[in-house]
Amino acid sequence: MQERRAITSVPIHDLLARRWSPRAYDAERTVTREQLITLLEAGRWAPSCNGDEPWRYLIWHKARDPQGWQKAFECLSDNNKKWVKNVPLLMLSCAGSIFAHSGKLNRWTQHDTGAASLSIALQALALGLIAHQMGGFDVEKARAAFSVPAEYTPMAMIAIGYQAAPDILDEETKAKELKPRARKPLAERFFEGGWGTPVKT
Amino acid sequence: MQERRAITSVPIHDLLARRWSPRAYDAERTVTREQLITLLEAGRWAPSCNGDEPWRYLIWHKARDPQGWQKAFECLSDNNKKWVKNVPLLMLSCAGSIFAHSGKLNRWTQHDTGAASLSIALQALALGLIAHQMGGFDVEKARAAFSVPAEYTPMAMIAIGYQAAPDILDEETKAKELKPRARKPLAERFFEGGWGTPVKT
Repeated sequence: MQERRAITSVPIHDLLARRWSPRAYDAERTVTREQLITLLEAGRWAPSCNGDEPWRYLIWHKARDPQGWQKAFECLSDNNKKWVKNVPLLMLSCAGSIFAHSGKLNRWTQHDTGAASLSIALQALALGLIAHQMGGFDVEKARAAFSVPAEYTPMAMIAIGYQAAPDILDEETKAKELKPRARKPLAERFFEGGWGTPVKT
Repeated sequence: MQERRAITSVPIHDLLARRWSPRAYDAERTVTREQLITLLEAGRWAPSCNGDEPWRYLIWHKARDPQGWQKAFECLSDNNKKWVKNVPLLMLSCAGSIFAHSGKLNRWTQHDTGAASLSIALQALALGLIAHQMGGFDVEKARAAFSVPAEYTPMAMIAIGYQAAPDILDEETKAKELKPRARKPLAERFFEGGWGTPVKT
């Protein structure tokens, strides 16, 4: 597996350091049912406000349900289609809108869904798989194609499978795949002693 | 450390299985600067749509900045104050609203902030610490106290520190701490072959 570890000033946990979002997937290797269930259990145990578990996931396994997978694939942006064609497992994360226990608005649904999806991505890595979340898809097309109820917001399509060499990618996608990883300095995102005051490192 | 592992049908990664949100914190043990930076590096390398890193975190270290910490504490709900009084490190996660690269609305900011906060919580566990995110705080009070700009939404207060025995808690909080962990069945959150159709396990 091509490693592109996070570049950090102090070591972070291996699973977090090794996670990234590759585009080169092995079209010949599928995801087993046990692997899928392991991924879902990881998402299931993510934290959520009031234990509401506001997320819902739609799952398409290319080998078991080629028609469903194709319908999901058709919702993707052209740029994503270039590489997702090789992906054996697709999911769509959706965020609810109200608390089941109270019927009141839950303002943490998207926040909590993001946490559940990261859990799934980290579990993928732990299984020797890779995961890549995509915002580049047609929300209304996905909603219509899969009857996503109005009270749920489709958030991200998630590609999961085994990694392949970047050489299988078209030139444009390959350039993205090989671009060095980067993040903003800590000082621009983490404040101490007041909004905008960089954390003391 | 009191372990309350996730109850799963197949094993998930240890870090995900061991994460939960305890309330019993050791008031005598602080979080070091190096631990804090490690937590922030974990958050920093979370995935985000278009690499926008839309999250911002405010940090209050009780030992270094008791006044700031107290001001943050005052924003909490009464139920949370009961146990957060022992917490050495508090953070507030905030989600932005527009993409820096385009100036357009970023609809994934809360989603991505949830992922960054889970990264921080998992890194806490990897350092032998515990973390607990709270929705129970006064958003407008926090906004005013710390000059959070209008374009950022305060999402969660995060308690981080060392775990203590549940005996230190008041009876009501202790009962919550010892309540068995639970999640909805996979079938209620993960669909395959159509919305609402339970995944085949």
